[in-house]
Amino acid sequence: MKKNIEIKIRGYHLDFYGHVNNARYLEFLEEARWEAYGTVINSDFFKKNGISFIVVNININYRIPATIDQNIIIESSIKKVGNKSITVYQNIILKETGKTTADADVTCVLIDKAGKPVAITEELKDMFC
Amino acid sequence: MKKNIEIKIRGYHLDFYGHVNNARYLEFLEEARWEAYGTVINSDFFKKNGISFIVVNININYRIPATIDQNIIIESSIKKVGNKSITVYQNIILKETGKTTADADVTCVLIDKAGKPVAITEELKDMFC
Amino acid sequence: MKKNIEIKIRGYHLDFYGHVNNARYLEFLEEARWEAYGTVINSDFFKKNGISFIVVNININYRIPATIDQNIIIESSIKKVGNKSITVYQNIILKETGKTTADADVTCVLIDKAGKPVAITEELKDMFC
Amino acid sequence: MKKNIEIKIRGYHLDFYGHVNNARYLEFLEEARWEAYGTVINSDFFKKNGISFIVVNININYRIPATIDQNIIIESSIKKVGNKSITVYQNIILKETGKTTADADVTCVLIDKAGKPVAITEELKDMFC
Repeated sequence: MKKNIEIKIRGYHLDFYGHVNNARYLEFLEEARWEAYGTVINSDFFKKNGISFIVVNININYRIPATIDQNIIIESSIKKVGNKSITVYQNIILKETGKTTADADVTCVLIDKAGKPVAITEELKDMFC
Repeated sequence: MKKNIEIKIRGYHLDFYGHVNNARYLEFLEEARWEAYGTVINSDFFKKNGISFIVVNININYRIPATIDQNIIIESSIKKVGNKSITVYQNIILKETGKTTADADVTCVLIDKAGKPVAITEELKDMFC
Repeated sequence: MKKNIEIKIRGYHLDFYGHVNNARYLEFLEEARWEAYGTVINSDFFKKNGISFIVVNININYRIPATIDQNIIIESSIKKVGNKSITVYQNIILKETGKTTADADVTCVLIDKAGKPVAITEELKDMFC
Repeated sequence: MKKNIEIKIRGYHLDFYGHVNNARYLEFLEEARWEAYGTVINSDFFKKNGISFIVVNININYRIPATIDQNIIIESSIKKVGNKSITVYQNIILKETGKTTADADVTCVLIDKAGKPVAITEELKDMFC
């Protein structure tokens, strides 16, 4: 069970339509992933083995607009672990109503210093889940 | 056939990894859609009928990092027109090599003043294609 | 005495140089102003009188780079109240060392519905200080 | 005489107020500086001597809001060359009216590999002016 984060929507998050801009949502997702998995990413194990991760796909649904002064909660959880990729499901909820404003599958691969994909072992899997 | 756009990658587009940040790509895509379809969106037909559009899904693949001083070209084309949605395929190419740095399907719906989805008639379809 | 805010620097805040980008600092400052003065700006008094504020000048010094995983604290305080403008001093401190990474004077004017400047009365001054 | 740049204002440049957000202006200024001085910054002379530059102060006036579908032109010129700093004046003009939407003094210092300020010699001065 990973930490959720809460963000208050400000004027500078919005765009012409008065809603959170779709690029900004990706920053919110990245913020939430660092909060949920930063400890793993910055762990000695990762550093020692020169492992970093890269995002290879984001599939995001924009469901209900979010606007100024609303609070959103971002939940992050591991959806799927493959041999070489991990998919994180992130759900962005309007705090007041509990409804999803946007949700996304974010697929990452781990790479070594040479940029080669790293196999997701049970040990690695356990660190994320 | 719609207009492509070209963007030169600057230092402020990058993040910690020295690559264009994944949120920034969505701004590039939005810029390219305005260039390709802005004339339609701002047309009298749209204004008269109070039609606007909203993005409901973005599915983006990050394939090869883009970095400072590279030029990227963004191509936009209609991939699929449904009864109530239009999917634009956007391909972001590194100009020097012709390789795709990222590509995305962006699905939009048209809505009327009341926020109700508008059926994509042949007339509307022709305006985009 | 107004509320300070704390932000953890993430990879997406940085640019090519590996430091927080200078545009991003302005978002941090805006976030801090909303936290410090949002209650006033959103007060019934402001709403009833149709008052909003606009930033007319930002004078920011970039003193020491801030980078990934550092925590910054942003203090906001009223520096000067004129007849028609308010200057907020904002100091961004590296939490670990207490040193200033950047600081800024941000000058705002209050405007009415017609966009005309509103005189800063004692009543208004008291709301901010 | 340096190259000006032109940018078309898009929906994602705006914020809650329907105007270009004040942080975004700093990205526009950075874009314009790269266009005007990128050739110098990326020159062999700079590379050979390990010189880079950092922005130490931005003093920006927000004069008239800029909004969607307007075109802005950004002019950059050297305002002042000191012993250890260069101040660039950047004027952002609404193309249609010729009026200034925002203008800024941007002060930079050149630093060597060790992060020490580099004296601005006549040779360096000539490269920028």
